[in-house]
Amino acid sequence: MYTQEFAAEVQLRKDKIVAALRSMNTDAILLGTNVNNYYMAGRVFSGYVYINSDGYLHYYVKRPALLKGDDITYIRKPEEIPALLQEAGVSMPSTIGLEMDFMSYNDITRLAKVFPEATAMNGSGIMRYVRSTKTAYEIEKIRISAQGHMSVYKSLQGTYYPGITDTELQIEIESRLRRAGCLGIFRVAGPSMEVFMGSLISGDNADNPSPYDFAMGGAGLDSSLPVGGNGTVIEPGMSTMVDLCGNFTGYMTDISRTYSVGRLSDLAYKAHDCSVAIHHAIAKMARPGVKASDIYNLAYNMAAEAELSAYFMGHNQQAGFMGHGVGIEINEAPVLAPRSRDVLEAGNVIAVEPKFVIPGTGAVGIENTYLITSDGCECLTDFNEEIMPLD
Amino acid sequence: MYTQEFAAEVQLRKDKIVAALRSMNTDAILLGTNVNNYYMAGRVFSGYVYINSDGYLHYYVKRPALLKGDDITYIRKPEEIPALLQEAGVSMPSTIGLEMDFMSYNDITRLAKVFPEATAMNGSGIMRYVRSTKTAYEIEKIRISAQGHMSVYKSLQGTYYPGITDTELQIEIESRLRRAGCLGIFRVAGPSMEVFMGSLISGDNADNPSPYDFAMGGAGLDSSLPVGGNGTVIEPGMSTMVDLCGNFTGYMTDISRTYSVGRLSDLAYKAHDCSVAIHHAIAKMARPGVKASDIYNLAYNMAAEAELSAYFMGHNQQAGFMGHGVGIEINEAPVLAPRSRDVLEAGNVIAVEPKFVIPGTGAVGIENTYLITSDGCECLTDFNEEIMPLD
Repeated sequence: MYTQEFAAEVQLRKDKIVAALRSMNTDAILLGTNVNNYYMAGRVFSGYVYINSDGYLHYYVKRPALLKGDDITYIRKPEEIPALLQEAGVSMPSTIGLEMDFMSYNDITRLAKVFPEATAMNGSGIMRYVRSTKTAYEIEKIRISAQGHMSVYKSLQGTYYPGITDTELQIEIESRLRRAGCLGIFRVAGPSMEVFMGSLISGDNADNPSPYDFAMGGAGLDSSLPVGGNGTVIEPGMSTMVDLCGNFTGYMTDISRTYSVGRLSDLAYKAHDCSVAIHHAIAKMARPGVKASDIYNLAYNMAAEAELSAYFMGHNQQAGFMGHGVGIEINEAPVLAPRSRDVLEAGNVIAVEPKFVIPGTGAVGIENTYLITSDGCECLTDFNEEIMPLD
Repeated sequence: MYTQEFAAEVQLRKDKIVAALRSMNTDAILLGTNVNNYYMAGRVFSGYVYINSDGYLHYYVKRPALLKGDDITYIRKPEEIPALLQEAGVSMPSTIGLEMDFMSYNDITRLAKVFPEATAMNGSGIMRYVRSTKTAYEIEKIRISAQGHMSVYKSLQGTYYPGITDTELQIEIESRLRRAGCLGIFRVAGPSMEVFMGSLISGDNADNPSPYDFAMGGAGLDSSLPVGGNGTVIEPGMSTMVDLCGNFTGYMTDISRTYSVGRLSDLAYKAHDCSVAIHHAIAKMARPGVKASDIYNLAYNMAAEAELSAYFMGHNQQAGFMGHGVGIEINEAPVLAPRSRDVLEAGNVIAVEPKFVIPGTGAVGIENTYLITSDGCECLTDFNEEIMPLD
């Protein structure tokens, strides 16, 4: 199924899952979503991964044809799994974790019946927790994404011409990202938050509220996708917030930068400087053991002290968070929010996005992706933090 | 919530749902996925749509802030809905349809508890059926997508240069589609089938099997997204199958065309001609009352008569279907497959894709989107069916 290098990685990930299963008194977990199959196999396939608390791991594959390995069995349907476990001398689970947060009701109901003697439990939390601390292998993938992602953001001076719209600029950046190796796909956990390749928002469009818990909405081009650019002609004095997809390796970085043509309002610079100051304060504070809610509160309080609360994380509609874990998906753990119970751990990779929406100007601020190290944190997306010119 | 024009459309869609609820002896349905919220509101929002068999319809909206209308109530959580129904004098349902095929196990479990006196039933099939026959309004949206989609496919001569890869060509076409108004997002029902903006496959990469039930797979550029182009350098004698996203309006068309540089193998032309002949035969046969399985069988038999069965709908891995409904999502009803129970109805919009994978050449054939009319069918994507030059 995978390369020898990746075999060691699978062992590492399996060990984390086994430890989580034991701590939750769960005998086994059966994974079946693309993201978790990818996490455990190093590639997307259609089928299931079975892992039990004794450390038994097996792949039950439906497609693609032609995968090979001792730990792979081809199946047509999940009902074949129990007999295959018995053949392999593996005892049946009495409790089994299933991906109840993300698999459909009907899929879970079917899988629960595959193990009629077992109590089905929600295994989504286990995977969310395990995946929230990245291995060295994963961090390397994120570093590669960061390089590609930053290279495009650094290249935008000169893209402006009079009359260019937010959408035209976004399409140009999408194309540059793709040519730099971006895979394009923007994975979001859960079915409800739909974004194409991220968002680019100019001027007061930032204040159009979103169907989602976003600091900035943007009306979008069509009511079927009411987020992001809406055809606004970019004008001098208007900010443009670029927050596009950084998935170059299966693992994403999340970066936002503010651009402008000419000078913005004084309030916009003040708010942008506050965002940068929040980043610097968080970079000093973030380390294992720090509460995610304390990081949110630090940012919230700094915005309040600067008398910018009315613009913090949105204006007409304010978001309830200020950062999030990132990896295979854009919305992983931990969550930086006032009521988050997450506590930072070494290996967390978090996107921090203290943004402000300034009426008459648009969105300002920056977003960086940080790695929590054993004794502090490292900015993986460290480059120009100023408002950058498009012209 | 919506324009006056769209109010009549909502009435039409609601009437279809009410009829389906009555025929299924279901008192009410509670929708909550983006696609079905969009279907009933004409815009994506976060929240729920409640419709009962008496024709009562109400939107319970979480976000975005600032929507207005007599039929809208803002809520923070779905548990508020029963009290709001009672206030409105609406009787409680004793059976309620929920989107069990597509909403998560935990979301459905929560929603079922909102109506503790009601029996929860699977409402996904009702919506799948209702949405499978398009209204005049929807057909107009699909026609607009068809125009944009075709305009880009017609523009590809001259994109070839020696050394160009499948990925480079795909990025160029993605950019042309986006500039022509394509929204980019490629909606697939269910969480498991992940594609970025469609696929472009050159040469023998067509024979790399897919994790999904696709005629052609393609290895992809990364194991996290193992579909489509894999960096193959496009060479004379190699076919290139273009099957990219046609979502310009929230409603998609699905079109594939085969391109080449120079001449292909005789077998490739024979198979391509067979694909075109299958289309012409289906265009004569398809009308309300025809079984979807009969359309599949017609195509299968024509491929067999031409001694092309080994290449039909794939070679190393063959797909189990030959067409599908298309609309808001790429995989709607009806399904053209050997065991499909679907029967064509006026208003169905179906993508028909008899394709062949020819070892040493690549994929050939075409895909068109058809509207089933009251007495036949209309090709919505009628343009050059030949293998077209890239050079």
